[in-house]
Amino acid sequence: MIQHPAFPVEPWVLRETTLHPEMLPQTESLFALANGHIGWRGNLDEGEPHGLPGSYLNGVYERRPLPYAEAGFGFPESGETVINVTNGKLIRLLVDDEPFDIRYGELLTHERVLDFRAGTLTRRADWVSPAGRRIRVSSVRLVSLTQRSICAISYQVESLDGPVRVVVQSELVTNEELPPRGGDPRVAAVLEAPLESVEYGAVDGRAGLMHRTRHSDLTVSAAMQHAVACDADTHTWTETRPDLARLTVGTRLQQGQPLRLVKFVAYGWSGTRSRPALQDQVEGGLTVAAQTGWEGLAEEQRAYLDDFWARADVELEGDEEIQQATRFGMFHVLQSGARAEGRPIPAKGLSGNGYDGHSFWDAETFVLPVLTYTIPDAAAHELRWRQSTLPGALERASQLGLRGAAFPWRTISGAECSAYWPAGTAAFHVNADIAHAAAQYAEATGDEQFERTTGFDLLVHTARLWSSLGHHDGGGTFRIDGVTGPDEYSAIADNNIFTNVMAARNMRAAADVAQRYPKQARELRVTTDEVGAWLAAADGIVIPYDSARGVHCQAEGFTEHQVWDFAQTSPDEYPLLAHFPYFDLYRKQVVKQADLVLAIQLCPDAFTEEEKARDFEYYEGLTVRDSSLSACSQAVVAADTGHLDLAYDYLAETALMDLADLEHNTRDGLHIAALAGSWIVLVQGFGGMRYCPGQPPSFAPKLPAALTRLTFTLILRGRHLRVEVIPSRVTYILDGDGPPLEITHYGAPVTVAPGQPETRDIPPLPARPRPSQPPGREPVRRSLPEPVRRRRGQGTSPAERAQPAEKTARAEKAGKAAPAGP
Amino acid sequence: MIQHPAFPVEPWVLRETTLHPEMLPQTESLFALANGHIGWRGNLDEGEPHGLPGSYLNGVYERRPLPYAEAGFGFPESGETVINVTNGKLIRLLVDDEPFDIRYGELLTHERVLDFRAGTLTRRADWVSPAGRRIRVSSVRLVSLTQRSICAISYQVESLDGPVRVVVQSELVTNEELPPRGGDPRVAAVLEAPLESVEYGAVDGRAGLMHRTRHSDLTVSAAMQHAVACDADTHTWTETRPDLARLTVGTRLQQGQPLRLVKFVAYGWSGTRSRPALQDQVEGGLTVAAQTGWEGLAEEQRAYLDDFWARADVELEGDEEIQQATRFGMFHVLQSGARAEGRPIPAKGLSGNGYDGHSFWDAETFVLPVLTYTIPDAAAHELRWRQSTLPGALERASQLGLRGAAFPWRTISGAECSAYWPAGTAAFHVNADIAHAAAQYAEATGDEQFERTTGFDLLVHTARLWSSLGHHDGGGTFRIDGVTGPDEYSAIADNNIFTNVMAARNMRAAADVAQRYPKQARELRVTTDEVGAWLAAADGIVIPYDSARGVHCQAEGFTEHQVWDFAQTSPDEYPLLAHFPYFDLYRKQVVKQADLVLAIQLCPDAFTEEEKARDFEYYEGLTVRDSSLSACSQAVVAADTGHLDLAYDYLAETALMDLADLEHNTRDGLHIAALAGSWIVLVQGFGGMRYCPGQPPSFAPKLPAALTRLTFTLILRGRHLRVEVIPSRVTYILDGDGPPLEITHYGAPVTVAPGQPETRDIPPLPARPRPSQPPGREPVRRSLPEPVRRRRGQGTSPAERAQPAEKTARAEKAGKAAPAGP
Repeated sequence: MIQHPAFPVEPWVLRETTLHPEMLPQTESLFALANGHIGWRGNLDEGEPHGLPGSYLNGVYERRPLPYAEAGFGFPESGETVINVTNGKLIRLLVDDEPFDIRYGELLTHERVLDFRAGTLTRRADWVSPAGRRIRVSSVRLVSLTQRSICAISYQVESLDGPVRVVVQSELVTNEELPPRGGDPRVAAVLEAPLESVEYGAVDGRAGLMHRTRHSDLTVSAAMQHAVACDADTHTWTETRPDLARLTVGTRLQQGQPLRLVKFVAYGWSGTRSRPALQDQVEGGLTVAAQTGWEGLAEEQRAYLDDFWARADVELEGDEEIQQATRFGMFHVLQSGARAEGRPIPAKGLSGNGYDGHSFWDAETFVLPVLTYTIPDAAAHELRWRQSTLPGALERASQLGLRGAAFPWRTISGAECSAYWPAGTAAFHVNADIAHAAAQYAEATGDEQFERTTGFDLLVHTARLWSSLGHHDGGGTFRIDGVTGPDEYSAIADNNIFTNVMAARNMRAAADVAQRYPKQARELRVTTDEVGAWLAAADGIVIPYDSARGVHCQAEGFTEHQVWDFAQTSPDEYPLLAHFPYFDLYRKQVVKQADLVLAIQLCPDAFTEEEKARDFEYYEGLTVRDSSLSACSQAVVAADTGHLDLAYDYLAETALMDLADLEHNTRDGLHIAALAGSWIVLVQGFGGMRYCPGQPPSFAPKLPAALTRLTFTLILRGRHLRVEVIPSRVTYILDGDGPPLEITHYGAPVTVAPGQPETRDIPPLPARPRPSQPPGREPVRRSLPEPVRRRRGQGTSPAERAQPAEKTARAEKAGKAAPAGP
Repeated sequence: MIQHPAFPVEPWVLRETTLHPEMLPQTESLFALANGHIGWRGNLDEGEPHGLPGSYLNGVYERRPLPYAEAGFGFPESGETVINVTNGKLIRLLVDDEPFDIRYGELLTHERVLDFRAGTLTRRADWVSPAGRRIRVSSVRLVSLTQRSICAISYQVESLDGPVRVVVQSELVTNEELPPRGGDPRVAAVLEAPLESVEYGAVDGRAGLMHRTRHSDLTVSAAMQHAVACDADTHTWTETRPDLARLTVGTRLQQGQPLRLVKFVAYGWSGTRSRPALQDQVEGGLTVAAQTGWEGLAEEQRAYLDDFWARADVELEGDEEIQQATRFGMFHVLQSGARAEGRPIPAKGLSGNGYDGHSFWDAETFVLPVLTYTIPDAAAHELRWRQSTLPGALERASQLGLRGAAFPWRTISGAECSAYWPAGTAAFHVNADIAHAAAQYAEATGDEQFERTTGFDLLVHTARLWSSLGHHDGGGTFRIDGVTGPDEYSAIADNNIFTNVMAARNMRAAADVAQRYPKQARELRVTTDEVGAWLAAADGIVIPYDSARGVHCQAEGFTEHQVWDFAQTSPDEYPLLAHFPYFDLYRKQVVKQADLVLAIQLCPDAFTEEEKARDFEYYEGLTVRDSSLSACSQAVVAADTGHLDLAYDYLAETALMDLADLEHNTRDGLHIAALAGSWIVLVQGFGGMRYCPGQPPSFAPKLPAALTRLTFTLILRGRHLRVEVIPSRVTYILDGDGPPLEITHYGAPVTVAPGQPETRDIPPLPARPRPSQPPGREPVRRSLPEPVRRRRGQGTSPAERAQPAEKTARAEKAGKAAPAGP
């Protein structure tokens, strides 16, 4: 899509120059604004046409039944689905009584711009009404990163060709009619008009609606206030109904005369606070926003983002498209997590209702590394959210017959919502992923307060889970049987290597904090014996290895399974899960997404360089990337093992996941983890930066042929370390005052002192033949020069590649509901 | 229950001498009558009170949606549920305007007798109405084994103490109100009033109702005709409505004067035939029945059963209760399969709606061996039913990406109805079980016509499934990965030993018939290469063995799993599936039901005697018998390995499964396979009779201390071989003319010629210590003398043991729907 002529490549914005109504579902996701608390899809101001109207509040969901034809003990009885809350985006316009609707009349010009530095979505449209009136609509929209409960719109209409009567209707609308969803009619019934009116009204130029959900018992409040500016006389009136608040402004504009409306919208919700308290909160937010004013909000927004980019920007030379995509990705990662504050980071952020709005393990595994090194506070907030769900996770573990905490596979509130346990409950690695993120955050920031109050809890309760989930066999080795790793084309396997190495790291990290924080250890009754048991389990963990093939086994027995018949699998049979039964996928050697390779990415110290190279090559031949969570890890390990061009190809795939709609479901929301993947590939892959517990941050930079320069900054223990990579060497630069920072460069210690950049050569990499992927599943060869790509038919533009409707419809027909993970 | 004073032990009948209304749900199952085509639960004539009204026609079901919160490719979209068809049992009685209802007035005497030789259920009740009228109701009911579409009731009422006005209402009632079912409300909606009226009417003393199902599109017709005999004047009238046909007979009886009504009921159904054709069929049946008359039908019934018992009875000395239970079991096995003719044998027969009326693998594995050696035609019919479902099984295999046929895990029509694939679709062993039954039938009967027309198809298409499901690994061994064996506490395992040995046998049997029937082989395009591939796969099949522990592994890696913590499992936590999640059960060493032990039972030639003994002992310590399908196999292999008293204990468990309501769900219908288990334990366990392909029938009789004599008869190639066992020796007796029969006795060849009984000594058995079961899961020690049992608290009467309500309610709450298999 970004290669489509309507989307020029620009470094700091995503610009759309012509409107393609059939692409609205996707562009609504791409142009979504959010601050981690509120999310507004990029719907047109006037509401229609639309792909999916979407206004979300992080944590606001409805409970719905999870049906089972054959249920079992411990299957969750109800699920959670994010709901479309009161829409505050709506500003409708009548032009001489005709509604402004781009499906009628003629759209002369159209432009939308998502500005990564301004944090705004601007739109300009010149339109001729069916009756021949020419008008211009200009709007700027923001979801404030500084005032968490506030969104604002600056909306202007002017007449381009003579006097015209305009009526602007600015609204709050609840229970919008949504496009039909497939699946269980009972679920659809619960989600149709999910909000019950509690109260509504207008006073002193403000109007508000308060609702509550029927089953999850959450109260949602939205209010709006306006500032109208117009030279001409205007008439305004306000009305409210249970599901509607409306300010109407009528006037008659001369040619060139604008009517400008600034709309401030405040949202609040709670499952516990009283209605008056909630009302006060929303009114208070609105008052502050109105006092700040539009320009003030816009300035705060830009200042917030200037600060962000100053410490977080990743600069590239050699690929402008990837440069743009990387900033696009980081902007959306920021929007998903910046102000989540006590709430999860859903797989789709707040940009759509895909995966029911659930948060998965990928928040900790892919999003948190980016936040940890660029907005550490946001990472801490996410981990505190996990901590806040500990009571439920302890209870779930107990229900499952385990000690410690069992965090959910998919959730909004913290309750397990996965209805297919082999790919949900059995995927216990989510617990190690959370522990890993907590330990990584503490190591990167040195935030002892966090480690003592939050990290400690997370590490100890997850370590307890592992020690009760696994067992020592006769030989003293520690086995974890019957679990599911990241690869969703395998399940219920013994000694999944990713799970085992992550569990071992988890138990070691718990032992470490237990020894360092004796007071906390006493409070949680951690004994010396328990710590000893964790360390014994970690030391004895089974790492299955196939000596005949000279590779590690993703899980025990995996390499003895039949290899998937890739030659007989046609291109339109991907994703495989939509065309083949789980039973067949599970019993063969075929990998949906990096699993062993993700273990190499996250725990590089658990493998020798030679093992990494052999394992990577072997699993490349089996991995089909039917998940958006794979290209990033394959890129990192490709770079580790010297396959820089392949890494670069995978970089493009993760970076363009949504801009090119590679999975044909961007309409449901963005793939936040895949977008975070750009940063990960650039920093961890080409920067070679890696975190290993107890060791200084390590770097091993190397650039693919296409990139001539890569610069990024990391926040390490509150300091900014800037890394500038060119093909032959790298410079490490530490800002500010304070002691020097210890790092390693290709294993050699480097001390970086403030004001004393350290430059090192990049050693030559071992030459290895490019590994093969399953036929037809090779990444697009971006690493080839453009003319070669074109000749080989691999450079088709994403717009050409995207044939979403047919393919996705087929997949949906076969699978009906969302598969277990992103 | 049978030890309850209300149920005296008698050799040829089940007699109830007092009525316990709270036990009606169970006794309705115990007293059910059926002929394999029609099933009538033992409901009281007057319909109420009842546990579950039940009238079933084999093959009549309704389709219903199978809901999934997270669906997957190949998950069946709809299920099938047996429906309660038109109730023809109902005969209501008014006594001076007061309904005869045992909940009112006083029941002076009550008796019901299920007569295994007469094939009737008789009832006698002396009752005083609330107004003080004493009457006697006597009824005899039969479901004809000779006239497949016919049931009949001889009903008589007489006054015991003076003139009384009686009105008898004999009815056909459709869409009876049933007790509420839990679970999905959409399913309940489909099954509430499942039959739509097509036509109804009465003519010439007959009345009939015709209905059809809404979704499965089956037409069901029922008609009735009566003969009334009474000295007094009677008035009769007939009325019909869409769901009701009623004959009313009114009269005034003097003391001792009887009114007798004979009711003939005919049923028919079809999914293809026209309504007039179906109507004619039912009317024709009714005409013949009425001409035969009540006495004629009863005589035919007794003659049919005399013939059956003459060739099939198993006689015991030393345990009258087991003698009765064994005949009770065989009677119900007969009732389930005798006249199924082109329809399946459901897990519950036609005695209840448990398991939705589905048929599973246990029909072939447990019921067919009994039928093969006692009513071979019925076995052939069941296998021809499987053959008739081949088109669907071929299509299912193709959907699953496999060649050959994949028969369903649970079904009525032949379509897969399992909504939980790890314990359904993945349990591919059902295909080998069917093949095994077909090969066993052909070997036992020498029925070449069957082998050529039916056995061939079943063997070849299932062999093709195995050869596509498994694969040769590098070393030439043949692996079958990711499947589920009989034990439902394990799933999706590699090289399940039962599956592998059965699949190998299946492929060898297919190779055998392909070589013996070249014409059929050409028709199915069986090539020499294909046969070679089957034999290579069978020869290379993986038999996982744990040399450290010296035992076979139920599946690869099984013995390395953690052993279930039986010590921490309390008695009320069984069945485990109702209290622990599948994930936990699957990953530990705990066995729901015989799996490896069943492999030893069915394929004794695949194990050495020493292996059998060690394997049996090891798996005894892990097997909890949460399935009714386990005790029988454990008994057989216990006997094989010399544990005769343990075998006897298990014999009692399978024999008393329903009479003592050991699983607390006899109310849902009888456990036909467990009832068949009595015969299997006596013949295969204590008779030591076994079928191995290509070898003469082998015997190795031995009796437990409690039994002093065991006699049984087998039909082998049309001949009757009688086997008489006493503790020290056995006599083999062949009837009729013809050539002698080759058998083996403890491995030594014996030639049995007609009229020349062969007597052989029983060798001493090796003495081995009794193996241990998981604590609390030991079978009741029937092998101890009664006073010892009593002292040790193990001889509690089943009536005392049965605490169904609480325990089952808990299981239902946790599990909601029926687990995958019986």
